[in-house]
Amino acid sequence: MSTDATTLDIETGATAVAHPNMALIKYWGKRDRDLILPVTGSLSMTLDIFPTTTRVRVGEQEADTIALDGRPADEVTTRRVTGFLRLVRDITGRHEAAAVDSVNSVPTGAGLASSASGFAALAAAACAAYDHSLPPRELSRLARRGSGSACRSVFGDFVVWHPGDSRPPRDDLGSYAEPVPAGDFDPAMVIAIVDGGGKAVSSRKAMQHTVETSPFYLPWAAGIAADLERMRAAIGRGDLQEVGRIAEHNALSMHATMLAARPAVRYLQAGTLAVLDAVAALRAGGIDAYATIDAGPNVAVLCDPRDEIRVARAVSELPDVSATHIAHRGPGTTVTAGAAA
Amino acid sequence: MSTDATTLDIETGATAVAHPNMALIKYWGKRDRDLILPVTGSLSMTLDIFPTTTRVRVGEQEADTIALDGRPADEVTTRRVTGFLRLVRDITGRHEAAAVDSVNSVPTGAGLASSASGFAALAAAACAAYDHSLPPRELSRLARRGSGSACRSVFGDFVVWHPGDSRPPRDDLGSYAEPVPAGDFDPAMVIAIVDGGGKAVSSRKAMQHTVETSPFYLPWAAGIAADLERMRAAIGRGDLQEVGRIAEHNALSMHATMLAARPAVRYLQAGTLAVLDAVAALRAGGIDAYATIDAGPNVAVLCDPRDEIRVARAVSELPDVSATHIAHRGPGTTVTAGAAA
Repeated sequence: MSTDATTLDIETGATAVAHPNMALIKYWGKRDRDLILPVTGSLSMTLDIFPTTTRVRVGEQEADTIALDGRPADEVTTRRVTGFLRLVRDITGRHEAAAVDSVNSVPTGAGLASSASGFAALAAAACAAYDHSLPPRELSRLARRGSGSACRSVFGDFVVWHPGDSRPPRDDLGSYAEPVPAGDFDPAMVIAIVDGGGKAVSSRKAMQHTVETSPFYLPWAAGIAADLERMRAAIGRGDLQEVGRIAEHNALSMHATMLAARPAVRYLQAGTLAVLDAVAALRAGGIDAYATIDAGPNVAVLCDPRDEIRVARAVSELPDVSATHIAHRGPGTTVTAGAAA
Repeated sequence: MSTDATTLDIETGATAVAHPNMALIKYWGKRDRDLILPVTGSLSMTLDIFPTTTRVRVGEQEADTIALDGRPADEVTTRRVTGFLRLVRDITGRHEAAAVDSVNSVPTGAGLASSASGFAALAAAACAAYDHSLPPRELSRLARRGSGSACRSVFGDFVVWHPGDSRPPRDDLGSYAEPVPAGDFDPAMVIAIVDGGGKAVSSRKAMQHTVETSPFYLPWAAGIAADLERMRAAIGRGDLQEVGRIAEHNALSMHATMLAARPAVRYLQAGTLAVLDAVAALRAGGIDAYATIDAGPNVAVLCDPRDEIRVARAVSELPDVSATHIAHRGPGTTVTAGAAA
């Protein structure tokens, strides 16, 4: 090892890039909160927009430091990230503190979660910085411990997250992500950012509240395995209509579980339904367009890439839509610089 | 009997008045479509606005004639009403054709169903015109055969409709309506008429489709009996908050069953959610206001009568609300003129 400060900096650090993913079959409900083991399987498309780039340096300081977009992270985030770094040190057998610098390209107020790309990039960069190489499946299990859906961002294109079936729950080998064979299926995803609604309940809390109080949660979960099978087959044969129908049913029924919670949790806003109306109108006009909605007011519209501009125009005209983004399938997590690859 | 034409007209005819009702626990799903036997019990408040007045004359003509608001009814309505008149003749042992004149005071485009008040008034007026007296419970069973929720409009104030439990389904004695003791509980109901959505699927079709395809229908139905018990107790002690909470949960979870149908049925419109937001804001401001939503985009807001103007103002300011009506608890069906009372 060189003692030159500049090269030392490079040699003790690693940088990774990860992209967000949009679930077509949602992760909704944990069977173990500490291990982040889900009740059901889920399936997503990794996107090619809004990557997170995270650099981890080790051995330069006494305690972990966390910076997001160039500023020190808040207390809650710092606690979450340092907890995750402890887990990485347990796995790698290392002890040095880490300096985390993460830059997220999601526009402020875009209403898109960055925890999936964030923890996927952090898991990859931290392992590399600690000189520890993990096979992708193991990296997905590790990323899952930071934020459940992060395990899916480890892989590109279409990804399934298996729930595992350990009883009692443990960090078993069964709950990991893996790619779904998709051939040349390459749909567009038009993301409509919907205004309004103000400060909503966090998806973590909403998920737990729904599991505990909604009479529809268990029936929802019971239907997922069959839909996952149908969805995987539809992706494999590039059947946009079937993928869209299953995704739209999955999202609407997930929001339905929340409407039936006591008290109800409602992420659907007036603008959300305006986008759903626009999607229905597009479909009535012969365009294959299907909506999915995460735990928030935004709507992602799956469509043929040949229709993406028309779809984007239709939704961006709506008064409650403040921005529109077009995404396609994107890459898995990659280590771009650092000790281990 | 007089042979004078004027008095003959009066003596062979009868007139009845009935009011609409708003369900606080909804009727959603039939276990027998011909007999209109519901899967679950339901509970409503009879309103004091928009009555239907129906006059039935018998023995003056060869075949049944049906006029609505002074004009001959369309074919579908005529078939439905003449089918109902045959049922009344079976019960009364009479054979003469009837002339039905029904006037409905619901404003055009108000989006409020008139089939409940319509068939309650028709059942009462037809029985009276055929000189047949039925106890109220039997009248409610008869009205149910015209339109399920009509059985509840036979009674005033708060009314429960028992599902009955005959196996196999038959027009058993168990499926009838009866009053719910309510003491001096007299809330206001502010009805916000919401624009948009165009021609929606009929509630009859939506109900059947939901029963057949929604994974949430049976869990929804399974929870009704307990909520009915709690609702009856809350009405009895005049507990507006508890009545409102149960009603809002019941309505949102009913719409949730539809969102999970394949394909989804959605009556909720952008304007519907805007009213729900306004109700949430009122509640955050200390006003006891609770929403219920029938199979359509309109929202009925239950509140204390001392708050009704404030609630009406809050919802009528919304751009998607085209009209606002304030209702209170109203009377049961009455025969106002005719041979039998």
